[in-house]
Amino acid sequence: MTTLLEPGHSGAGIGGATVKRIGVIGTGIMGADHARLLTHAVSGACVAGVFDLDADRARGVAADSGGARVFADPYALIADDDIDAVLIASSDATHEDFVLACVAAGKPVLCEKPLAPTVEGCARIVEAETAHGGRLITVGFMRRFDPGYTDLKALLRAGEVGAPLMLHNVHRNPAAVPGLPSSALITNSAVHELDITRWLFDEEIAEVAVHTPRASGQAGGTRDPQLLILTTASGVLSDVEIFVNARYGYEVRCELVGESGTVTLDAPPPTSLRRGGLHARALPGDWRPRFAEAYRLELQDWIDGTDGGATAWDGFAATFVAQACVTALESGQRHSVGLPPVPGIYRR
Amino acid sequence: MTTLLEPGHSGAGIGGATVKRIGVIGTGIMGADHARLLTHAVSGACVAGVFDLDADRARGVAADSGGARVFADPYALIADDDIDAVLIASSDATHEDFVLACVAAGKPVLCEKPLAPTVEGCARIVEAETAHGGRLITVGFMRRFDPGYTDLKALLRAGEVGAPLMLHNVHRNPAAVPGLPSSALITNSAVHELDITRWLFDEEIAEVAVHTPRASGQAGGTRDPQLLILTTASGVLSDVEIFVNARYGYEVRCELVGESGTVTLDAPPPTSLRRGGLHARALPGDWRPRFAEAYRLELQDWIDGTDGGATAWDGFAATFVAQACVTALESGQRHSVGLPPVPGIYRR
Amino acid sequence: MTTLLEPGHSGAGIGGATVKRIGVIGTGIMGADHARLLTHAVSGACVAGVFDLDADRARGVAADSGGARVFADPYALIADDDIDAVLIASSDATHEDFVLACVAAGKPVLCEKPLAPTVEGCARIVEAETAHGGRLITVGFMRRFDPGYTDLKALLRAGEVGAPLMLHNVHRNPAAVPGLPSSALITNSAVHELDITRWLFDEEIAEVAVHTPRASGQAGGTRDPQLLILTTASGVLSDVEIFVNARYGYEVRCELVGESGTVTLDAPPPTSLRRGGLHARALPGDWRPRFAEAYRLELQDWIDGTDGGATAWDGFAATFVAQACVTALESGQRHSVGLPPVPGIYRR
Amino acid sequence: MTTLLEPGHSGAGIGGATVKRIGVIGTGIMGADHARLLTHAVSGACVAGVFDLDADRARGVAADSGGARVFADPYALIADDDIDAVLIASSDATHEDFVLACVAAGKPVLCEKPLAPTVEGCARIVEAETAHGGRLITVGFMRRFDPGYTDLKALLRAGEVGAPLMLHNVHRNPAAVPGLPSSALITNSAVHELDITRWLFDEEIAEVAVHTPRASGQAGGTRDPQLLILTTASGVLSDVEIFVNARYGYEVRCELVGESGTVTLDAPPPTSLRRGGLHARALPGDWRPRFAEAYRLELQDWIDGTDGGATAWDGFAATFVAQACVTALESGQRHSVGLPPVPGIYRR
Repeated sequence: MTTLLEPGHSGAGIGGATVKRIGVIGTGIMGADHARLLTHAVSGACVAGVFDLDADRARGVAADSGGARVFADPYALIADDDIDAVLIASSDATHEDFVLACVAAGKPVLCEKPLAPTVEGCARIVEAETAHGGRLITVGFMRRFDPGYTDLKALLRAGEVGAPLMLHNVHRNPAAVPGLPSSALITNSAVHELDITRWLFDEEIAEVAVHTPRASGQAGGTRDPQLLILTTASGVLSDVEIFVNARYGYEVRCELVGESGTVTLDAPPPTSLRRGGLHARALPGDWRPRFAEAYRLELQDWIDGTDGGATAWDGFAATFVAQACVTALESGQRHSVGLPPVPGIYRR
Repeated sequence: MTTLLEPGHSGAGIGGATVKRIGVIGTGIMGADHARLLTHAVSGACVAGVFDLDADRARGVAADSGGARVFADPYALIADDDIDAVLIASSDATHEDFVLACVAAGKPVLCEKPLAPTVEGCARIVEAETAHGGRLITVGFMRRFDPGYTDLKALLRAGEVGAPLMLHNVHRNPAAVPGLPSSALITNSAVHELDITRWLFDEEIAEVAVHTPRASGQAGGTRDPQLLILTTASGVLSDVEIFVNARYGYEVRCELVGESGTVTLDAPPPTSLRRGGLHARALPGDWRPRFAEAYRLELQDWIDGTDGGATAWDGFAATFVAQACVTALESGQRHSVGLPPVPGIYRR
Repeated sequence: MTTLLEPGHSGAGIGGATVKRIGVIGTGIMGADHARLLTHAVSGACVAGVFDLDADRARGVAADSGGARVFADPYALIADDDIDAVLIASSDATHEDFVLACVAAGKPVLCEKPLAPTVEGCARIVEAETAHGGRLITVGFMRRFDPGYTDLKALLRAGEVGAPLMLHNVHRNPAAVPGLPSSALITNSAVHELDITRWLFDEEIAEVAVHTPRASGQAGGTRDPQLLILTTASGVLSDVEIFVNARYGYEVRCELVGESGTVTLDAPPPTSLRRGGLHARALPGDWRPRFAEAYRLELQDWIDGTDGGATAWDGFAATFVAQACVTALESGQRHSVGLPPVPGIYRR
Repeated sequence: MTTLLEPGHSGAGIGGATVKRIGVIGTGIMGADHARLLTHAVSGACVAGVFDLDADRARGVAADSGGARVFADPYALIADDDIDAVLIASSDATHEDFVLACVAAGKPVLCEKPLAPTVEGCARIVEAETAHGGRLITVGFMRRFDPGYTDLKALLRAGEVGAPLMLHNVHRNPAAVPGLPSSALITNSAVHELDITRWLFDEEIAEVAVHTPRASGQAGGTRDPQLLILTTASGVLSDVEIFVNARYGYEVRCELVGESGTVTLDAPPPTSLRRGGLHARALPGDWRPRFAEAYRLELQDWIDGTDGGATAWDGFAATFVAQACVTALESGQRHSVGLPPVPGIYRR
């Protein structure tokens, strides 16, 4: 466990009293957004180092971050004594190597999802952290910090709707790149609902199935939409409509069904408009306005070391279940998931 | 085809210009309600005859219906020259015999759902009507007249959301009788969604599957709730949550997902209440307030002979698909439906 | 009191057991709509006679009403032995004479609002009915039958929000005729809220004031919108935004504020649409779809003789208070209303 | 203008690149909350000094703020070289002296509303700041930072509803202290709507009137609720229901009416609950959860020096208009406001 953490602290966040110096690897849309939040909207942090394959882009983000250093080598950034912790927002395929380097350096790391694109890559990371003997890794499943999802979980925990039975999820994007593989709907998009299902019910997913209606004519050959059916160890059923060419807007909704009531999460905006024969609320165009507050709270939690984020195990499990869903998509059959047992450092 | 119908009329309704004299068989909750509507809220009809096994109950409804005759024999009612058409709201097991008697008498008949409890019974009715050579039978799938459902269908037909891909249905009752067979959730309750799916998309259901979460502790051993997955001939996927011990109230909702948008039917009441820390809309206690207007419009349509109701074929198909769902519930597997071809008198 | 009424009946409706033969005077949009409802959607009524200055229009409505007689003289229609009751939907200026003729003939009459355009005209009608000694007149303030308003009143009566303190009303039309006098916003449109305020709180309006923001550039010189402030005898404050060039659609809403909670009436449609970046519910284009059910229930109540409609006194009071509001609009000051005492036949 | 500000900066915020050391005067509910936000949720700030008449309370807040110094004398805090800027959340009567001391010390100050309880006190502050020659004072009208209000203003500015005509406001608290003076509804509560009306339309309020229904039986003699009618210089009418014993919860809503549409601000929470026969959204218990995000954004804006907050002139104008409303409440008449001209340093 890193010396950055407060005595007695058992989580993977940063913690401590002084301003944390963060290195950001990858300054595309997500990385630049994280750098902006760390600089302007989070307490106790600054961006001290930046790396991107595109050096111009890195320089731009460094300038907007109050003069951070631009590194030519991401491993040098990770190793630098003036970098307290690392945020990884580079391309998915690079996550594993950077995360492993952070673990080797004993530095807290927040890695955008996925932890790694393959089950094997995720397993190597879990092994490395377990060998390290304490948690350093946080995975960027930001929905866990969304005020809507945390409200939903609080209502469930408070017994407001009785024991849980079902969770109906809808996850829609306006448009996907043409030629997107059908499996990407699961591994890139519905993976958020896989994580949320595990987080909300605090148990593993035991069985999966995937149903597919005829594909949208707008989907360019991708099997889009899909309906995932996830069953947890205790028998809660979580169904997920994932539709990445929904055209009309971005939307994430769910309804939790309990034995005595239900909770719906739909996160309406604060205003509505009456115009042209309609009474309407605007829908966001993509996930960033919808989850802007979740990203801010995720980063603040990481900086504070309060450890509310997803662990490397959560990252492994999400990729593992996603892979099981891909198998079920291809077979058309129900599929048992069969996760290995959770290592001790991840037990709560 | 009965002489009650206007020349050129090809449907099963009553039509014609004078006041229709209706005989009501079965005066329990539904039959009494129908008699009340025919007497007080429908144009062009009166209740002329009433039969119930409980003669006192029949007399009460006859009195409330402006002095209808009470029959001691339902077949005498059907045969009586002063009865123009028959409404059947007796117990499910009696439907087949009464409907067949109406066909034999050449009289229009509105039969509460189910047309008959078994596929075989429904088939015998379809055969009898086909042999008769014209349509006399209407089945009481009243949702087809609900302003919400007709609005939904109109929006779909107008192309407001593009080609249909999915329909998510929720159907909840506050409580069921203890010991209810698990199959009854399908045959008694979800059968409405089976009919609505066929009606909305104007095509048959080709494949079904049923998923079951752990049962509610309130369900007394019944597998409740259930999630039905219906796939139509063209590949539209209609999923149905049926939950008959939902406790909090009665609710029927759905969301139609098209290639460019969605329509949600939730039918909020006209008022909302702010009180005790909540901003709330009331939910109905059961299906009668929710579908009061649908029942009135169904009866008016039947009396007018405008023929918007479900046919005997629709009644047969609903029971046939329900039976396929029961098989899928028991097997846990996807199940092909395999409906026989539709007889000519039911083609539109 | 007419012999059409049941013994012991004290109201102005028709009542009785056989089919009532209605004469309709005025077959413009409203009259034709009433004739259609009486013929096709109301139990126990038929349209037996029709008059309109435009004889072709009268013939069209008569044909659509199952062959009603067309009268060349409205007074002949009123006097005819085969006409049991009269519905007046002719131009406002003609109401008084026709209503007085109905009273003279001892026939129940449903008169569209206003009962008469002037306070004096309304007073003459009240005098005539009082002299007749029993109630024959119903005024077409249809909102009293709207399921939303009746729900609102039921919640108030049931004590759900405590003693009433305020009622906030919004009444918007998409567009008015250019050059509309500013007073017409009150006498033609807000008069509905004057009536609803009296009906909901079951007391008279004692004081009025009118505030005017700058007029909409779309209003062509009319002082539009206006904000009426009505105070009842017991001190309940009812404010009314009346805006007849609101452009975006037709809308009638209100919020009742009680000592412990509030009730909002907004009457959302049963479906909502997600499309083009919006989650929207459609608004009606004018008052007819919004109040279609109210009109049907108003007519059924009149035919049934259950006497839920507005009386001639209500029609007088609405015109009287509207006149006081016009005075307040012109003076810019608070204005005491000073209604005369209610005659005995109108006391409940 | 203080040297803390960036070159070229013309506003009253703090700005600059290093961590700002804030002194907090008054650590009751609001002051403690501000200290918590500055310490844990705002970028670029820390709490360096604390004063409260209750020294124990001050010590508690200092400890929660990462070890801030506790001052025994508020003027010593203001003067201290290690305090860059001051936040005033002490009792209303003390605001004027502390703000004047900050101006004398040339330090940025954020003062909770009201700037001062009297028009004269506010005027002395405006004079002092004008004499100082540059803006140092921000007044805590936090609603200007609420995402709902900023969305409302953005929609208005974008022309989404055409030119503004009216603003209907509702402002309700569950309960007030017994014996509250009737004027306090205006000066303590509705003052927020006075500020929002000025801010939204970017013009002064020219005329006011106050209508009062009968008082709630729960109001203990206070004239509660009240209806304020504010008219801006250009003729926009803003009405405000202020009701401080509404019992059912805390609620702030408004509807902006433009020439072609309206915007409603109601800020629904992200989740809704179906339970016990209701479909409900929770209402906040008081203003703090409702405006939590507004407070955070207000403080971040102040720390960043981006100058979006209310000025001393805004604080003066709010108190001035509130005083005019109190006069109108007492007289029952319309009342012209007559604000003096705005000093040059406040013109934009």
